Amino acid sequence: MTETTPVTVFGLGVMGTALAEAFLRGGHPTTVWNRTASRAEPLVEAGATATAGPAEAIAASPLVIVCVVHNDAFREVLTPLAGQLAGKTLVNLNNGTPAQARELARWAAEHGIDYLDGGIMAIPPMIGTPEASVFYSGSPAAFETHRETLALLGQPRFFGDDPGLAALYDVALLTGMYGIFAGFLQAVSVVRSTGSTAAEFLPLVMPWLEAMLPTLTHAAAQIDGDYGEGVTSPLAMQAAAFDNLLDTARDAGVRPDLFVPLAELMREAVAAGHGEHDVSSLVEVLRVEPAATG
Amino acid sequence: MTETTPVTVFGLGVMGTALAEAFLRGGHPTTVWNRTASRAEPLVEAGATATAGPAEAIAASPLVIVCVVHNDAFREVLTPLAGQLAGKTLVNLNNGTPAQARELARWAAEHGIDYLDGGIMAIPPMIGTPEASVFYSGSPAAFETHRETLALLGQPRFFGDDPGLAALYDVALLTGMYGIFAGFLQAVSVVRSTGSTAAEFLPLVMPWLEAMLPTLTHAAAQIDGDYGEGVTSPLAMQAAAFDNLLDTARDAGVRPDLFVPLAELMREAVAAGHGEHDVSSLVEVLRVEPAATG
Repeated sequence: MTETTPVTVFGLGVMGTALAEAFLRGGHPTTVWNRTASRAEPLVEAGATATAGPAEAIAASPLVIVCVVHNDAFREVLTPLAGQLAGKTLVNLNNGTPAQARELARWAAEHGIDYLDGGIMAIPPMIGTPEASVFYSGSPAAFETHRETLALLGQPRFFGDDPGLAALYDVALLTGMYGIFAGFLQAVSVVRSTGSTAAEFLPLVMPWLEAMLPTLTHAAAQIDGDYGEGVTSPLAMQAAAFDNLLDTARDAGVRPDLFVPLAELMREAVAAGHGEHDVSSLVEVLRVEPAATG
Repeated sequence: MTETTPVTVFGLGVMGTALAEAFLRGGHPTTVWNRTASRAEPLVEAGATATAGPAEAIAASPLVIVCVVHNDAFREVLTPLAGQLAGKTLVNLNNGTPAQARELARWAAEHGIDYLDGGIMAIPPMIGTPEASVFYSGSPAAFETHRETLALLGQPRFFGDDPGLAALYDVALLTGMYGIFAGFLQAVSVVRSTGSTAAEFLPLVMPWLEAMLPTLTHAAAQIDGDYGEGVTSPLAMQAAAFDNLLDTARDAGVRPDLFVPLAELMREAVAAGHGEHDVSSLVEVLRVEPAATG
């Protein structure tokens, strides 16, 4: 498609609006639809076309982007319009699971719709900047055809024709992010019990966390290879000391909830024979079924 | 004290041995004692003096460093020797809680022992390198007197005369570290379900986590100030999407245990009125008692 491929955006929350703005800035004829029509007004002022109904919005463009609250809302609006979507490319940027993405891809295939599932690795103000990244998976042809247009939103990355992979990697990165947040918020809570502020804690905790990140490379090598290779802190020792972490929180008037499962998993891993391995061996107790590799 | 202050090290595990080695390298007369005497042999070959009993080890030096498994082992060995420790400086580098440190400081004060509690922010191979840092709190006089000697172990940092603070900040930083580990190990487990290796995931996850760390500065400002200031992602929206994270893990054959409490805390925070605030507002539900500030 050319630089002027018409684009339709469904769903004008903060993120959907940011997406439509990026297409407008890129010079694309942009059609928008939202259940609450008033949300479209600022975009119409900026040059977008708002349609009365979803069918007209679909008719306007060969490329239809959906960014609604969740996949239930997606199904509700688009399932009745499968016929109108036939022959078009549908890009689903809702937050969802890989299983939902695969199910929607099957539905799309049954109706002759070219389907891409996506995960937006950015907050709305980042859309259209080099810091934003958007993951895609599903139809390779659809991705190639619309790569340049999609690049207006953020760096596009294609994970292949399993439509579930974009959501899977999206969730995996968010999981890593929430780990950082959980650790930081718990640590700050403990420190604040002394009367210190969060800002005062930053010069201590930030360099420490920055120094910890590179150790994940070693953990990855152990996970792919041998948990006993270059052990820096035996899990049995870490598990024995971990109650101090929970008790310190409790004594400081802070709930230890976020880290209670880690204590339990450490005990399980030690019981399963990983006492002399590093903390990376926890992946062995995290998985219920054998992983495909490793 | 001069550069040649004699030092005694109790406990010759991997860490205790590294501490004694650092004092020997620094030219200090170093006396060691360990319940299992054979552990002392390599240090004796390197110039240390091993004593038959703990009382002789204490008599040898004005500065006594203890690095045993936990504070129960500390009490068992040292409580009967309080008389011999009177007038000396006792540095407790065991893993423990602030409450334990404060209790031991009281015991030391009752017996005329100058007490420092410490937390080692390093793994044994780092001892004596610029990367190692050791936190201290307790007797300011003891810290000033022995600062140069203690600097042989790693960058010394003194947190003041509340003997619990070194342990508290030690635990707080470890909590931050475990947050990173928990997030990474959970994320890797999900990714490995696709057949990908942990090493293949690194080029994706490392820059992402590096990009997330600076956002903690904004979180700290919200915690100290206003949770509604510059909200990037409303908690109500994050809470609604969080089940996707847990379901994705389950579908991938990975236990979601580590992140189940975060889902619950998000729901509680939203119910408590933080739905339009950022994730930083979780500190409000984490604390059981009002914090001293904020």
